[in-house]
Amino acid sequence: MPGDDRQTTWLSAELRELISDGPLAHLATINADGSPQVSAIWIGLEGEDVVSGHMGRNLKLRNIERDPRVVLSFTAPREPGVFLDPYAVLRASARITPGGAWDLLNRLAKVYMGPDQEFPAPKGEGFIIRYTIQRVGGVGPWATR
Amino acid sequence: MPGDDRQTTWLSAELRELISDGPLAHLATINADGSPQVSAIWIGLEGEDVVSGHMGRNLKLRNIERDPRVVLSFTAPREPGVFLDPYAVLRASARITPGGAWDLLNRLAKVYMGPDQEFPAPKGEGFIIRYTIQRVGGVGPWATR
Repeated sequence: MPGDDRQTTWLSAELRELISDGPLAHLATINADGSPQVSAIWIGLEGEDVVSGHMGRNLKLRNIERDPRVVLSFTAPREPGVFLDPYAVLRASARITPGGAWDLLNRLAKVYMGPDQEFPAPKGEGFIIRYTIQRVGGVGPWATR
Repeated sequence: MPGDDRQTTWLSAELRELISDGPLAHLATINADGSPQVSAIWIGLEGEDVVSGHMGRNLKLRNIERDPRVVLSFTAPREPGVFLDPYAVLRASARITPGGAWDLLNRLAKVYMGPDQEFPAPKGEGFIIRYTIQRVGGVGPWATR
């Protein structure tokens, strides 16, 4: 159902589990000149939303303010002898909300760095990006095409 | 040196080693409507070139024919307790040449699948994408910014 932007349809249990495991996600946005821009980011779940936290208003946020069309892609742990390791490609519409970034990043630090880790940056408000998932692709039980 | 498109400048020994280890790479291209498109692909080295092989003329190849500006991004193996795992983001100009895809993919199958594996698709000519690397970013010894 391309064009259907109800997010909850697409977050299967398997995809939620993959996200909860803390894969480094590649966030693709569009630069002002129309070229692609990619950053590696932490992602997490907040209820039914996929979210990420950012302490500064950097290039990817400025790109999203201009064009909310993004792609998040990330791989599951590697399996030897497999043609293509499981991976997910999420086409999404991104929106930025101010505040809450440090608390989110500190929560994700427990997943991405270790259970006793604190997010290693000064506390601050920052920004949260919320992703409305429009299509889930890739290879794995979450792929809808 | 953004804008400098000499590829050989940027492929450090560490980056060549990371590519040779067979990371699943995220290839970002631009769709006709200006939105980002991402596929997970195998990549390899052919002399000083970064290359990938494709049996069919699919969406990413059609996107590259229209706009050669792409980003390749991939992560090194995960290290516990590290703030951001090493990863590479390569801004590149892509060009497509016909033929040779199956042989390249069969060589890469030894890296991505296992030393005794044959590429699991019918033999054919296909296409090779060659990437002229314009900037290397990310986190790791290969990052130039």
